[in-house]
Amino acid sequence: MLKIPPHQVAGHQAGNGKLGPLVDESGRFYKPLQGDERGSNELKFYTSFSSNSRILEHISKFFPTFYGTQLIEASDGSGLKPHLVLEDLSVGRVNPSIVDIKIGSRTWAPEASEEYIQKCLKKDRETSSLPLGFRLSGIQIYGNRESGYWKPERTSMQNLPAEEVKLILKKFVSSNTSTDMDLQPDCAFAATVYGGSTGILSQLLEMKAWFEDQTMYHFYSCSILIMFEKGLALEGQNPGGQIKLIDFAHVIEGRGVIDHNFLGGLCSLIKFISEILTDPNEHKSLVSSVNGVN
Amino acid sequence: MLKIPPHQVAGHQAGNGKLGPLVDESGRFYKPLQGDERGSNELKFYTSFSSNSRILEHISKFFPTFYGTQLIEASDGSGLKPHLVLEDLSVGRVNPSIVDIKIGSRTWAPEASEEYIQKCLKKDRETSSLPLGFRLSGIQIYGNRESGYWKPERTSMQNLPAEEVKLILKKFVSSNTSTDMDLQPDCAFAATVYGGSTGILSQLLEMKAWFEDQTMYHFYSCSILIMFEKGLALEGQNPGGQIKLIDFAHVIEGRGVIDHNFLGGLCSLIKFISEILTDPNEHKSLVSSVNGVN
Repeated sequence: MLKIPPHQVAGHQAGNGKLGPLVDESGRFYKPLQGDERGSNELKFYTSFSSNSRILEHISKFFPTFYGTQLIEASDGSGLKPHLVLEDLSVGRVNPSIVDIKIGSRTWAPEASEEYIQKCLKKDRETSSLPLGFRLSGIQIYGNRESGYWKPERTSMQNLPAEEVKLILKKFVSSNTSTDMDLQPDCAFAATVYGGSTGILSQLLEMKAWFEDQTMYHFYSCSILIMFEKGLALEGQNPGGQIKLIDFAHVIEGRGVIDHNFLGGLCSLIKFISEILTDPNEHKSLVSSVNGVN
Repeated sequence: MLKIPPHQVAGHQAGNGKLGPLVDESGRFYKPLQGDERGSNELKFYTSFSSNSRILEHISKFFPTFYGTQLIEASDGSGLKPHLVLEDLSVGRVNPSIVDIKIGSRTWAPEASEEYIQKCLKKDRETSSLPLGFRLSGIQIYGNRESGYWKPERTSMQNLPAEEVKLILKKFVSSNTSTDMDLQPDCAFAATVYGGSTGILSQLLEMKAWFEDQTMYHFYSCSILIMFEKGLALEGQNPGGQIKLIDFAHVIEGRGVIDHNFLGGLCSLIKFISEILTDPNEHKSLVSSVNGVN
């Protein structure tokens, strides 16, 4: 029985007769193969990557498992359509907090069409991509059973200045409920979600080490998903913080050069997360000292 | 007594009635202040950087010392003109091999004028900047007393593919004379120039660590100079490998974000140098194995 994924925060979404991904109960995620070269390109990437013997487990774990392609009934009622069959990344999660971050100050490959380049360049300049090296593409933050999720409009997330992006990344690991998201975030779970030997920062650093070295693929317009379970954090358990790379419609061959565009953006994100870990209350203390003076 | 710098490999050059930098015998380098905002911007950077107490010696050593400004007779005979007074980086060097590498896949700041952005973007796309994250802006490689320097046309260096850039960076540390630059480079000095605890790679890694952290400045269109003395290498002495950052007319404030554009390009350059150190003879061994098969 196929259904609409309950925790998708960005990308094309099924529902209301639209074409989008579906999930089943066995933990598989069905992504419609886009009809143009994006579809064939993403399939080419998954096929290459999943059979690449140079990709070891400590890196492949950051990518959705690929199970091939399958013809299934498309979500828009248009009949049987080819879909990529992937791992459903939200399996086993109850109320996941998720942020989708598109990495890289440039979302276009040098050999893309002129029209596509101009479209992407315009968007990169209008959003946080150019100044920050990444942009927030979508987010949902679990509050509690009563308040549910805080899930702001996706477009409102894309062009925030550095300080507001940092605030969002603080809210992401705070105990605030979704109804008091305008309060100062307490960063109550920063240490357990972002920190620690298996936390988000450690995973990002492991990914960074690979990007400093690998010259096989360049990942344009690709996102890092960061996920964890606030319910577990509230109970003092390991919140299951995890990063995954998704969206490979614009991956090209690296041809002996590292992906300096992705790596730069990744390092910028790492700096944001590091600063939150080092000084979770920088604003609070600023506020208190100003109040103290007054 | 002011004279034209003998070892300049890129940038505006004095001579033939043109405006360019001059040097004196006390080790100072006089760079004409460009009349437009580039001049005032570079002066602003040197003034800020040289008085910035957060810049420690292990980083400031990568920058030319700044001695203020001075009115001197311009090289084009146009009379007294304001010049930046900087450290002459070639002082004490006899026959330096030098390469000037412009870092970053993007040489323009987000807030530059539309005309300037389009000009830079065009050049970044036409040169190695976009694919490699840096481009070679100029080079001189010392051969020996008879052959002198190999100093190819600057424009011929800017748009080379990855394999040819690697070849040039191999030639840079080879014992070949300037007259046999078309031979296979032997990488005779790779270990002593690029390698070792005080070599070029170590210095680049030290600079990288700073760029992963600092959010004060963004260095657009800035170059790394790599210099060493082949004469010393030939005598088995320390060749004095050194890197310096130069050209700060397009530096802007970092505003709390790392310079992901510079950092990405720097990491790409580091990967090139690392590969040469790890496997200086990759092509030779390829050639021998092919010959062996035949």
